Amino acid sequence: MARYAYVDGRYTAHQDAAVHVEDRGFQFSDGVYEVVARVDGAFIDMEPHLDRLERSLASLEISAPMSRRALSMVMSELVTRNGVRNGLIYIQITRGTAPRDHAFPANISPTLVMTTKRVDYFKQKKIMAGCKVITTPDIRWARCDIKTVSLLPNCMAKTEARRADADEAWLYDAAGDVTEGTSCNAWIVTHDDRLITRGVTDNILRGVTRETMIALASELSLTFEERPFSVAEAKAAREAFSTSATSLVTPVVQIDDTILGNGAPGLFTSRIQERYFDYCRQNGCRQNECRQNGAQA
Amino acid sequence: MARYAYVDGRYTAHQDAAVHVEDRGFQFSDGVYEVVARVDGAFIDMEPHLDRLERSLASLEISAPMSRRALSMVMSELVTRNGVRNGLIYIQITRGTAPRDHAFPANISPTLVMTTKRVDYFKQKKIMAGCKVITTPDIRWARCDIKTVSLLPNCMAKTEARRADADEAWLYDAAGDVTEGTSCNAWIVTHDDRLITRGVTDNILRGVTRETMIALASELSLTFEERPFSVAEAKAAREAFSTSATSLVTPVVQIDDTILGNGAPGLFTSRIQERYFDYCRQNGCRQNECRQNGAQA
Repeated sequence: MARYAYVDGRYTAHQDAAVHVEDRGFQFSDGVYEVVARVDGAFIDMEPHLDRLERSLASLEISAPMSRRALSMVMSELVTRNGVRNGLIYIQITRGTAPRDHAFPANISPTLVMTTKRVDYFKQKKIMAGCKVITTPDIRWARCDIKTVSLLPNCMAKTEARRADADEAWLYDAAGDVTEGTSCNAWIVTHDDRLITRGVTDNILRGVTRETMIALASELSLTFEERPFSVAEAKAAREAFSTSATSLVTPVVQIDDTILGNGAPGLFTSRIQERYFDYCRQNGCRQNECRQNGAQA
Repeated sequence: MARYAYVDGRYTAHQDAAVHVEDRGFQFSDGVYEVVARVDGAFIDMEPHLDRLERSLASLEISAPMSRRALSMVMSELVTRNGVRNGLIYIQITRGTAPRDHAFPANISPTLVMTTKRVDYFKQKKIMAGCKVITTPDIRWARCDIKTVSLLPNCMAKTEARRADADEAWLYDAAGDVTEGTSCNAWIVTHDDRLITRGVTDNILRGVTRETMIALASELSLTFEERPFSVAEAKAAREAFSTSATSLVTPVVQIDDTILGNGAPGLFTSRIQERYFDYCRQNGCRQNECRQNGAQA
């Protein structure tokens, strides 16, 4: 377990990290979050994650608890204190603590919490060997574009997946089209060399890893299409995979009872994954280099 | 402010009442709640509220933190300590604290929190003089029958209402039919003496006050109908009102820009409200009598 958490201005022992029972995050799920992966001592896609955090806060009219620069410094300090070279940092910001009343109260200070976790991504079985996903109806609200802690339906679907010996659940809408996973974006590669993922205007989260992937995928010999695909199309696809900050690129080798290809990660998926791993490692090198240059300057 | 809160086995000073940052209520809105009104020193509809709390817990497979009898005893002790003769008790139960992972963890202890608030219901302006409601699309998830703390859309709609100088927002579905308010059930009285509220099979909460009201309404000269009604039908109605544990029966005198009747609480609404007030006061008498008899026995 990580030794320290950060809560509202203090680095505190993890076991003592607490928020008030009238924190609106606890009583109303009135808060947002980000998870940023750390690989080889560097945060991956730090700026896009902070961009999205700011967008989430703005969508809900929650004030930023501190400047972006200060937030970055706290993030760095916490992973340093906890010795997280590979893993993740979890950042949650809620509207703050106020006497219980549904309406947003005026003039309260937001609550800022950060915790960390060590993860050795490149040794994770599901990332390396691929995983099974189940499909289940998407019963979430209409603002899944905001990254809020209103995650109960995601938790229910993920639990359903685990009980079916799967790692993730892909959610589908009333039309039978896949929206996204409970904590990832969903992708397929078709037999005619098309790479497909749903558009972000359609009540799904604008995944940071998804955006990076779109940029990287242009280097591969695949035609990229941003459009809905059905569960049936996914099961008939050549390959499938998920992306997220902490599952990176995870091959999907089984959807419900349908095994894709020969049940091993597909060729394109493996190439895309390797390209993304390179991106992460190079990112680490770049950031470490910047720091060294900064220190020398 | 109330002096004490109850958190996981302890009566603690309200300002010190806290939960861990990895409580699943805080990180995932993975918890349920109840609000029980207290009038003249007695809880209103205590048993139906505890019935519903048990149903909510069962729906999410959260274990009960203690027996129903023990829960009742803590509720009584807290309102006694805080001197709440008229007001409410708020009870929240979350799945508990565990390292962050969407799937429900096994073998964790649920978190139980209670707070209280004093309210003099019969002097509340909105209850006595009626209130304005706005209408706004219902963007909530598909399991609004479970009373969870996943309340962000409700908070957003309530905020929209306050900004329009209204007290509440009535939500409407894709068909234009009213589902319920952000924290109440919605009712209309038509010009042909029908009392109408939406059925509970249709993604709304089974309101405890709603159920009591259905029983009491049978004493009035109105035909009760449980069916959806549209925003347009509500605006054309003779009367309208909301019910909930803490708004009791609140007359609605304006919907968006439409003033109902002469802008004062309607005749039937006032009779229904008076009947409910009697029910609350008699309930108090009955409970106080039981306690006195119990003490004498």
